[in-house]
Amino acid sequence: MSHYWSAVTHGLTPYVPGEQPAFDRPVKLNTNENPYGPSPRALEAIRAATADTLRLYPDPDAKALKAALAKRYAVEPAQVFVGNGSDEVLAHAFIGLLKHDRPLWMPDITYSFYPVYCGLYGIEYRQIPLDNDFFLRPEDYFPNKKNRAGAIIFPNPNAPTGRLLERADVERIVAANPEAVVLVDEAYIDFAEEGSSAVPLVGQHPNLLVVHTLSKSRALAGLRVGFAIGHPDLIAGLERIKNSFNSYPLDRLALAGAIASVEDETWFQSNRRKIIASRVALIPQLQALGFEVLPSSANFVFARHPGHDAAKLAADLRQRAIIVRHFNMPRISQYLRISIGSDEQCTALITHLRDILGMDTLE
Amino acid sequence: MSHYWSAVTHGLTPYVPGEQPAFDRPVKLNTNENPYGPSPRALEAIRAATADTLRLYPDPDAKALKAALAKRYAVEPAQVFVGNGSDEVLAHAFIGLLKHDRPLWMPDITYSFYPVYCGLYGIEYRQIPLDNDFFLRPEDYFPNKKNRAGAIIFPNPNAPTGRLLERADVERIVAANPEAVVLVDEAYIDFAEEGSSAVPLVGQHPNLLVVHTLSKSRALAGLRVGFAIGHPDLIAGLERIKNSFNSYPLDRLALAGAIASVEDETWFQSNRRKIIASRVALIPQLQALGFEVLPSSANFVFARHPGHDAAKLAADLRQRAIIVRHFNMPRISQYLRISIGSDEQCTALITHLRDILGMDTLE
Repeated sequence: MSHYWSAVTHGLTPYVPGEQPAFDRPVKLNTNENPYGPSPRALEAIRAATADTLRLYPDPDAKALKAALAKRYAVEPAQVFVGNGSDEVLAHAFIGLLKHDRPLWMPDITYSFYPVYCGLYGIEYRQIPLDNDFFLRPEDYFPNKKNRAGAIIFPNPNAPTGRLLERADVERIVAANPEAVVLVDEAYIDFAEEGSSAVPLVGQHPNLLVVHTLSKSRALAGLRVGFAIGHPDLIAGLERIKNSFNSYPLDRLALAGAIASVEDETWFQSNRRKIIASRVALIPQLQALGFEVLPSSANFVFARHPGHDAAKLAADLRQRAIIVRHFNMPRISQYLRISIGSDEQCTALITHLRDILGMDTLE
Repeated sequence: MSHYWSAVTHGLTPYVPGEQPAFDRPVKLNTNENPYGPSPRALEAIRAATADTLRLYPDPDAKALKAALAKRYAVEPAQVFVGNGSDEVLAHAFIGLLKHDRPLWMPDITYSFYPVYCGLYGIEYRQIPLDNDFFLRPEDYFPNKKNRAGAIIFPNPNAPTGRLLERADVERIVAANPEAVVLVDEAYIDFAEEGSSAVPLVGQHPNLLVVHTLSKSRALAGLRVGFAIGHPDLIAGLERIKNSFNSYPLDRLALAGAIASVEDETWFQSNRRKIIASRVALIPQLQALGFEVLPSSANFVFARHPGHDAAKLAADLRQRAIIVRHFNMPRISQYLRISIGSDEQCTALITHLRDILGMDTLE
């Protein structure tokens, strides 16, 4: 605490990212990183951009990246916004599009950065409980005589539960709130079934903003690129904020790598299918150990063991250099969020869990 | 304009960065980029980091970069903050350290992004006129019976004038305002005389924050890395803001390149000396063409021609693919800001100016 801090600084409860363990070669299943490397074309493009031209500023408008994303997602470049990871895109959306006189609505169990942004920008918010199965009920987000939202945000698939809301249900929420921006945070959507993304709805709904990241399904968490797709008016609002904050949030290497990644559809499809297959294989193995596993459409699973404390399980795994994420928060403190790793990592997880749970001796 | 925008978005006047000309091989003297490439060690480090590990998040605390900067500037890592270019560092400082009940004081002629940040974060500010020679009078920043600052910010050397305030004068301002944070934006300090930077004062003054960038003197505008040095309490305040905005603003490549650049003192000293020498050579050539040139301690000069309109000169130069910066703002609308380019670029500038001014026929 310091009297040099602003009142905002004093009042904040910052976000705590997942641990980056310092010890050697952990089985790192705590931050939903992709177990496979990025597109080789992305690495090639970065190498080509690693030159004396780094003395020059990047394109502040990221025109080439917006064009590549527009082509990939069948929209216009004016419908695309890019930023330094989806976290920066979200931050700009909070101050630029989600801050209104009425409260922002969000699920009670959701990406824990959302309330932090509200603290940073002085946004009032209301948390709407998921049902007992951690399912988001679309009707809960419809306006009624007493209440309507200033804006709405939710991840789909939700984090950290992994549960998917079908596109038709997303559209019901968007259509029921034509006066409010609805931000759908699709960080994990590429691990859901085809046809789940809300991106194809942006043409019909000027209040819909869909946010994506290259960190997960494109294996570029280390490059920091995220983007949003929506009506040009929403994008123009985000650009106003971005141009009042930092003219050049994406460096030349990030731009080059991101463009090549977005253009490599073959790598992308192959990668996401491998991870979906690993998830499909992992869930019954966890169930066989007694875990209850929520249906997942993400590159992680959210699971609890009725006979074992989640915090203790996480600590026991950590002793064996296997890192999973445990959130000590209401309703979910008995769950572990486990990223889908490589086959080798999944096998290590199951082997060590069997041992921790004493399963080998029970068999 | 859109009713989906927040009130903040509606009220903004965003910053306009210098043009990135689309035509081929311009003589680009408008955004103070370094004419020479970055340290070869930086490029080497980036190449080494261009690997499958880009699938993993970067270190959110940038510990290795902070350690390298702390060593280079003879401070502790807890006195160092890093961000996505000095613009992001400044943005976080505005909301985290410069927003108080009393207005923020700044010069009337200064980096034009400062009032934009004030608009973004709702910070009241007061602009204090430079004197007629564009010199910042330290006394103007001393508190008096009627007024004292909530916080103070100024660039040193100032932008876009290039004028330097001696370190002793900077310290007088800092010492006179022990209750207020004084942010000295030293983006261009490496082109001033040795002993000009305020960094060595941070140990004695807990209210002093000094901001630097790798964009200019380290020729890494394309990599987006800036940093701040100050008391650990000020740094902790910035970390609170950063961790409420974006956990990982520096990607793995930017971290690797920045560390190697900071460690390459030989390249750094050689580069800054070359640019200072070019500046010393350019000024009398401009004066011989009739320009009045302000004393400069930066990698640019700020000059006016008594007989020629600045906007027209800039347009004439642009026709010849030479891009300089013209600010259509009170007091400085008859000035051009010209970056120090390579010897070849400086020669092209002088040759074309002679021609535009009709000097060859007059001789």
